[in-house]
Amino acid sequence: MGEKLTIMSSKLIKNAADRMVLTGLNGKSVVPYKGVGKFKPEAQKYAPSISSCADYPTDGNKRVDSLKKALVKCGIEDGMTISSHHHFRNGDLVANQLFDAVKELGVKGIRWFPSASFPCHEHLIRYLDDGTIHHIEGSMNGPLGKYVSEGNMKGTGVLRSHGGRYQAVQDGEVEIDIAVIGAPMADPFGNANGLEGGSACGLLGFALVDSEYAKRVIVVTDNMVEFPCVPWQIQGNNVDFTVEVEKIGIPELIVSGTTKITKSPDRLLLAELTAKFCDVTGIIRDGFSFQSGAGGTSLAVGEFFKDIMKKKGIKARFARGGSNKYLVSMLEEELVDYILDGQTFDLDGVRSMAENPNHVWTSPFTSYNYHGKGNFAGMVDVAILGATEVDVNFNANVVTHSDGYLLHGIGGWQNCLFSKTVILPLPLFRDRIPVIIDEVTTLCGPGELIDVIVTERGIAINPLRTDLIEKAKGSGLPLKSITELKEEAEKICGKPEKASLCDEIVAVVKWVDGTVLDIVRKVSP
Amino acid sequence: MGEKLTIMSSKLIKNAADRMVLTGLNGKSVVPYKGVGKFKPEAQKYAPSISSCADYPTDGNKRVDSLKKALVKCGIEDGMTISSHHHFRNGDLVANQLFDAVKELGVKGIRWFPSASFPCHEHLIRYLDDGTIHHIEGSMNGPLGKYVSEGNMKGTGVLRSHGGRYQAVQDGEVEIDIAVIGAPMADPFGNANGLEGGSACGLLGFALVDSEYAKRVIVVTDNMVEFPCVPWQIQGNNVDFTVEVEKIGIPELIVSGTTKITKSPDRLLLAELTAKFCDVTGIIRDGFSFQSGAGGTSLAVGEFFKDIMKKKGIKARFARGGSNKYLVSMLEEELVDYILDGQTFDLDGVRSMAENPNHVWTSPFTSYNYHGKGNFAGMVDVAILGATEVDVNFNANVVTHSDGYLLHGIGGWQNCLFSKTVILPLPLFRDRIPVIIDEVTTLCGPGELIDVIVTERGIAINPLRTDLIEKAKGSGLPLKSITELKEEAEKICGKPEKASLCDEIVAVVKWVDGTVLDIVRKVSP
Repeated sequence: MGEKLTIMSSKLIKNAADRMVLTGLNGKSVVPYKGVGKFKPEAQKYAPSISSCADYPTDGNKRVDSLKKALVKCGIEDGMTISSHHHFRNGDLVANQLFDAVKELGVKGIRWFPSASFPCHEHLIRYLDDGTIHHIEGSMNGPLGKYVSEGNMKGTGVLRSHGGRYQAVQDGEVEIDIAVIGAPMADPFGNANGLEGGSACGLLGFALVDSEYAKRVIVVTDNMVEFPCVPWQIQGNNVDFTVEVEKIGIPELIVSGTTKITKSPDRLLLAELTAKFCDVTGIIRDGFSFQSGAGGTSLAVGEFFKDIMKKKGIKARFARGGSNKYLVSMLEEELVDYILDGQTFDLDGVRSMAENPNHVWTSPFTSYNYHGKGNFAGMVDVAILGATEVDVNFNANVVTHSDGYLLHGIGGWQNCLFSKTVILPLPLFRDRIPVIIDEVTTLCGPGELIDVIVTERGIAINPLRTDLIEKAKGSGLPLKSITELKEEAEKICGKPEKASLCDEIVAVVKWVDGTVLDIVRKVSP
Repeated sequence: MGEKLTIMSSKLIKNAADRMVLTGLNGKSVVPYKGVGKFKPEAQKYAPSISSCADYPTDGNKRVDSLKKALVKCGIEDGMTISSHHHFRNGDLVANQLFDAVKELGVKGIRWFPSASFPCHEHLIRYLDDGTIHHIEGSMNGPLGKYVSEGNMKGTGVLRSHGGRYQAVQDGEVEIDIAVIGAPMADPFGNANGLEGGSACGLLGFALVDSEYAKRVIVVTDNMVEFPCVPWQIQGNNVDFTVEVEKIGIPELIVSGTTKITKSPDRLLLAELTAKFCDVTGIIRDGFSFQSGAGGTSLAVGEFFKDIMKKKGIKARFARGGSNKYLVSMLEEELVDYILDGQTFDLDGVRSMAENPNHVWTSPFTSYNYHGKGNFAGMVDVAILGATEVDVNFNANVVTHSDGYLLHGIGGWQNCLFSKTVILPLPLFRDRIPVIIDEVTTLCGPGELIDVIVTERGIAINPLRTDLIEKAKGSGLPLKSITELKEEAEKICGKPEKASLCDEIVAVVKWVDGTVLDIVRKVSP
């Protein structure tokens, strides 16, 4: 693995999005972004080794006493890649236990490949400092993002969308040596799900690709049941070892007991405008589909949708989640036929998924993998998403703040851009810093895929969407150009300063096809 | 592809089961059987090409007007391998439609790779004759088996177990160019299941590996529903094209309206002895598991199990099926916690699978694939299976009759031999031909994996199973040696003649690991 990259040490070239990006990353060459749908690899998927049942216990009992012993049985070595998932969000106890064990074993230079990391993983900074972990490839929310932004990590971080993570493993871009999969319910064979137990999180889709392609797979549970653990969201036939531990998660930090809709009048206005826009442009029609996040504004959009649907006497065919009690209530009131769920955000989501066959668990493979024979994202009529910044070409940023700090992951955001209509309801400014600017600090989504920006002071439609512009005409909605919105924000807050950044590259943002869309630089001390 | 093989044209060598087998097959080299658990390939799984969503319709609509057009879009060419599944059993209309289309396109030399063929596929003999189909790899039940046995097929047939078929594709032994998957319910994206519609067959597990590894995948349905088709037993993300046709199956030939237990006093005696054996040896205990077929005798064994369990006040943890109304009644009466089902044999099976979350659909991957990290077969306490012949070393045959005719497939039979105890309840003779003989016509299962032969005139326990011999002592059961049973049969029927066979090899029997266990010769005209 390579060490820190600087502009000096790495050749930078301009990609199809006009961003200067590197061509080598952690010792491997990478492809610069070539445009939406332009890069088509002529290659085969990654091919894991053939296993033999002769090497596994015939009675299916793959139990090992401890995670540490299991790591040893997996042949853990310096420089390996170890993966984990983030279904336990900020209540995850597995990754910390994992690296405590790695540290005890004296292993160094691990590439940690989580589907995301959270503030609870601040514990791992000591292992980044002492060389146990070489670098992280995965979303770095909060303290780890700050750590990376300040140039402290040895290797270069790699940010991928949920679908991009699946793609990277499937395509052999990232070879996982050991996958450690925390499971709220599992059997000794390794069948596992997220539906029941003290650490119930709903589903385990983020770990699917790890289970399918990793050389060795360990399932860790605090709820070992007798075979068969049904349903098997993770299939024991892909698992090498199972480990029972005391506790894998903190329930109240895994799923929220109460998801709450925003009470902010500004945010409610954004939500209302978004819903009205979808109504007048005919997006809300019988049998339509939508995806909306779990943030306060997104939840409110869902509630406005609900009112409109009830008034019209129509229903949606499906909603893509992140599920929560609001979405579940729509399913239960038969306003949507199906929830196609990628992760559950609250207890109602978990309950509904366990009980209701129309609340379907999905995976980054079904929903987001761009290197499959299609995926679900494109079938969604409208996706309501967030962003930290948008520029006048509708390009958007979701990973860095305007000060350049890397504080968020990409999640499924990039993947959802393939929905038929993408709407970003955004406040015109946050803490007196404009959100619509000349150029985004970090490019995460190409403007050609972003259709509508809804702000409290007006709605801008991407000029590419002449159909939407036509339909919104005469609706009474406050339509403006994105430049007008930008100027309005600047009138109030002044022209924002650009983030003060060093030359050193601390992370890269991958596009859904594995190409490099942008780089993230170290913030100036 | 190679042409007909004869002993002259192919080097034969003796494998670990003392059978003379060939080392080349249809133009490729093959590995002779090396013993149970002895062959461990040092290789990677087959790696399909990376696809890109850019090449598939964003709205998920992959419909094509006709199967013929879909085949053309798949780039059908002479000599390709085309696969299909046998969930519609003798009611299948898809394979015949498929090859009518292939014929119309003038394509020649296809390797047909069905999971099994049935008498309804007699229609295809014309295409074997005229060179449209070069040869069949898959079970050949009935007329096609006879056709092959008489030396009429151009290539050499290859018989694999359900698990062996998964293994062969996964390992790249068989590369499928085009998979044609008949689906009782599907959406335009290609998500599909077997649960609902006029051709409901329960599940589609036999087609799973085809969907995962084939270069091109076509889903054919007579019940196209709006996205999403839930559950997706076949995932649309693996599918290239979807086709709607008039009819894909004949319901009454797909699933039986009434599965019937044998009324033959002889068979009932076999069933009763089998159940008693399981009782006295402690196999039937609280939380045990069993697998029993859908034949009349097997069904009767299940009913005797039921009585014993009720009397003892115990229940089974799971039953592996082939499901049918008797097994379903055990699930519904809470005598088994789970049915882990591979194929449904009657309407009650289909209904239960659609309704009851404890009636779980499995696949050859979960249940049988020997080149996985374990499978379910070994976890089953007792498997009750059939055979056409057994020899004095407990070796058994399931594919040929004593006259040498190839009339049956292997099904999951070889895979089930890995259960903790394997019992074959068999009549001592059929049509006055002894079933227990000196040497089986065709070796399908090594004797070391077959534990008990139950006949109406006595029970023989494999000497390797000293534990069972010990437990059965003093039980009052009619225990005999297998030689005693053989001699008893010969006393009644006379010493059976060996099948009269030519030198020409018409098919081979693969073991679960892809090695060649035995060959099948042409019958003498």
